[in-house]
Amino acid sequence: MDKLIIVKIGGNVIDDDEKCMDFLKSFRAIEGKKILVHGGGKLATSLAEKLSVQQQLVEGRRITDAETLKIITMVYGGLINKNIVAQLQAFGCNAIGLSGADGNVIQAHKRVHASIDYGFVGDVDAVNASLLNNLLQQNITPVLCAVSHDGKGQLLNTNADTIAEETAKALAPFYAVDLLYAFEKAGVLQNANDESTAISELNTQSYAHLKANGAIFAGMIPKLDNAFNALRAGVHKVIIGKAETLTDLINGTSGTSIVHD
Amino acid sequence: MDKLIIVKIGGNVIDDDEKCMDFLKSFRAIEGKKILVHGGGKLATSLAEKLSVQQQLVEGRRITDAETLKIITMVYGGLINKNIVAQLQAFGCNAIGLSGADGNVIQAHKRVHASIDYGFVGDVDAVNASLLNNLLQQNITPVLCAVSHDGKGQLLNTNADTIAEETAKALAPFYAVDLLYAFEKAGVLQNANDESTAISELNTQSYAHLKANGAIFAGMIPKLDNAFNALRAGVHKVIIGKAETLTDLINGTSGTSIVHD
Repeated sequence: MDKLIIVKIGGNVIDDDEKCMDFLKSFRAIEGKKILVHGGGKLATSLAEKLSVQQQLVEGRRITDAETLKIITMVYGGLINKNIVAQLQAFGCNAIGLSGADGNVIQAHKRVHASIDYGFVGDVDAVNASLLNNLLQQNITPVLCAVSHDGKGQLLNTNADTIAEETAKALAPFYAVDLLYAFEKAGVLQNANDESTAISELNTQSYAHLKANGAIFAGMIPKLDNAFNALRAGVHKVIIGKAETLTDLINGTSGTSIVHD
Repeated sequence: MDKLIIVKIGGNVIDDDEKCMDFLKSFRAIEGKKILVHGGGKLATSLAEKLSVQQQLVEGRRITDAETLKIITMVYGGLINKNIVAQLQAFGCNAIGLSGADGNVIQAHKRVHASIDYGFVGDVDAVNASLLNNLLQQNITPVLCAVSHDGKGQLLNTNADTIAEETAKALAPFYAVDLLYAFEKAGVLQNANDESTAISELNTQSYAHLKANGAIFAGMIPKLDNAFNALRAGVHKVIIGKAETLTDLINGTSGTSIVHD
């Protein structure tokens, strides 16, 4: 089975031109088939401020209203996606930028919730593995932004972590998929305040143990639950770690690997 | 030879939601292989105004400075392109939106001019016919926005008419290409103020004649010169006419056909 590396890059790298350039150089250097998934960082927030588009909160949750969706479509689908693609092309990586509407690559539905209307937020229904596969076979590198569509003409703001996870699952039948979450921390930390305490490997047993003793908590729990879901769905390995060390994350000398038991 | 229809849609349709929806319905109904090329309309100008980005003029020519390029990338490459694609998907047309950087589809260079620095404006060098061909063979419909790249990481604002023309020329060896410019007028008019005087067919001889007697003048001349260039480069037919009559333009009952002698 061919190897496929899917990297999700966090906003903190997107927001920093120099970090982003370094990251794209390391990404370009990955041999073989690869996919990049990116979110948005602070650019969308700062554009919303400049345009006086207020952030809507309902019951403490952030809502994507029509104006915010326009900003997200412009910033994620246009500004960030096209600049990443142009830069990868300059580095000799034949990238193609896609929203979920393009080639129907990520189909989703507007989030259904008992009490909160999240607005134009999408939960993923299906990933078009056949199109992605076709591009990968031509040595083209898809660059996915965090925008999906509902198949009825509506674009939807969609969590980039979820897009990466769903894409990894959809391609797992065709490739040995490594899914990398490249973010600002060195991995899953034993001590949240000490970057040197990254756990090198985690399976369901060690995860349960670390949750029980309180070392893993808060925002890291849904992230790791998703990672284990991806493994159960056939993804080969999930790796979480610092974007600056992408090469080391891939060769396993940095970050936390979430692995099968 | 398979037929391919390339339609360039003007800003006046993009600016009008209802017109745009009707146009996309007609576009979707085109049988066989097709490509859509779009410019930007007034959305980019109004965003620039909201963001207080001044329009730069040098010797009376409009300049694309760095801030304007960002706006164009957001509006053309993001907002307009992704919404068109989502709408075409809803109509059952498997569209994929591309800037020139995506898959290196439109490579260009920054415009060179003796006295004016146009800023980030691109003149087209090459169209990646092989990628477009591959998508068309999968019955995917490319939707190209008016943004190209220089292969060195720089996006460039590029005339949508030119992108349509260069794409038509690049695909002429593989398809019988009809190139349609769908705009606000009924075609090339004998009397510029009378929509009922559209000339149904134009070849180099009748063009020379109408230029000589002053019926064709001003902005229509470069448009038609480009059309004849496209014919000389192997494009089957160029049609100019009203976007609202797209179906009639295609079956030849409306608009002006620019044809071989």
